Amino acid sequence: MKINRYKNDSKTSYALGATLVFELIKTSPNLLKKVYLNPRLDQSSKEIQEILSFLEQNHVETITSEKPFHILSPKGNTFIIGEFKKSEANLDQDQNHIVLVNPSDAGNIGTIIRSAVGFGYQNLAIISPAVDVFNPKAIRASMGAVFHTKIKYYDNIDDYIKTFPDHNRYAFILKNATDFSKTTIKTPFSFIFGNESSGLPENYADFCTSVKIPQSDNIDSLSLPMAVTLAMYLHRQI
Amino acid sequence: MKINRYKNDSKTSYALGATLVFELIKTSPNLLKKVYLNPRLDQSSKEIQEILSFLEQNHVETITSEKPFHILSPKGNTFIIGEFKKSEANLDQDQNHIVLVNPSDAGNIGTIIRSAVGFGYQNLAIISPAVDVFNPKAIRASMGAVFHTKIKYYDNIDDYIKTFPDHNRYAFILKNATDFSKTTIKTPFSFIFGNESSGLPENYADFCTSVKIPQSDNIDSLSLPMAVTLAMYLHRQI
Repeated sequence: MKINRYKNDSKTSYALGATLVFELIKTSPNLLKKVYLNPRLDQSSKEIQEILSFLEQNHVETITSEKPFHILSPKGNTFIIGEFKKSEANLDQDQNHIVLVNPSDAGNIGTIIRSAVGFGYQNLAIISPAVDVFNPKAIRASMGAVFHTKIKYYDNIDDYIKTFPDHNRYAFILKNATDFSKTTIKTPFSFIFGNESSGLPENYADFCTSVKIPQSDNIDSLSLPMAVTLAMYLHRQI
Repeated sequence: MKINRYKNDSKTSYALGATLVFELIKTSPNLLKKVYLNPRLDQSSKEIQEILSFLEQNHVETITSEKPFHILSPKGNTFIIGEFKKSEANLDQDQNHIVLVNPSDAGNIGTIIRSAVGFGYQNLAIISPAVDVFNPKAIRASMGAVFHTKIKYYDNIDDYIKTFPDHNRYAFILKNATDFSKTTIKTPFSFIFGNESSGLPENYADFCTSVKIPQSDNIDSLSLPMAVTLAMYLHRQI
């Protein structure tokens, strides 16, 4: 048995813990390749019983061993790990999109996806270079919401725009922008957000409507997950 | 020179980096006790010049040495550290409050404070047991916003309520709650949020109006900073 620590170019990733494995089975059972069980796993809980029953019925390979847990979850608080095939999906032409340009933090992107699913968004475009959304840290921060979302990476914003030329683009920029809460939003739309530290390049104003969330001068900006969550809430798809 | 790693019961804490030291000087100069300068600090930037000039004018003790940086910022990307007196403040009777019950994560509480300042909230009550808001990690996550906020710890919710009996209490609970966006909010109010994992105890419904943020069934809940930020945005004080 050879267990590889997760890398960005791995073809598979890992869902750490029963909650994530359960989400994976519910939403994307075909992506599940293998399940590792810690010998110390308490098999009596209802959730674990359901997982084990699914694995047996679907002939999913299961491996009972401590070793994968030492490698994949060194902190030692995980008792079940699902290995799954990383999978991007084409976004929908007729749906509204969230577009993240060069996001850099795994925890942030997981949190954003959790909020996105909470407000009914199912299409996420990520412009490279960017954090790997299939990093187990991002998967965990999303609380499994990543399995409910279509995610697609683009090499640059032009590639995204060529694919979705008819989407109305709203760029979240602090400079020379109008109040987002007072802006008329036309569908289908793309809400576009920049990197955590540097934000969006100013030239985005040339091909997007610039908007900003009202805030006091005592902070530079809201954190990225906050801004994205607010925008999604105000135009929630539920 | 004896430098102590930060502990919860330390009387002072540390603002790591020029941005935080600058915020500290702007908002709470009287709390500043000492400043450590890394010998490798580039003193040519405008921000650093302003800081150094303030320190000189106000006879703040400065110590140039690498040692504090090894102890307080082992990752090595910090070149100036401000040591400041931890200070709680009594909250205002006539202002709206955010009340966090047993928050446990330093990054989360920092992010919440950043949003709070962004939306004009200046009064934060924290019910113990709880994370230490003066932990350098929380200070950093707040981007210095913590210096713009009145923060007070209470041993339990009863102590808080006794101090502010006339505040209208809104508890964010998922069960049997009404849609927050459709709830009439009377001022002065307290928006009350529970722990990241466990939420608020159900008995809060006995002495608060229970509210919830609408969300899809595909997630258990929004993350704590998201929920707090949304509530503050919808009733922003700016």
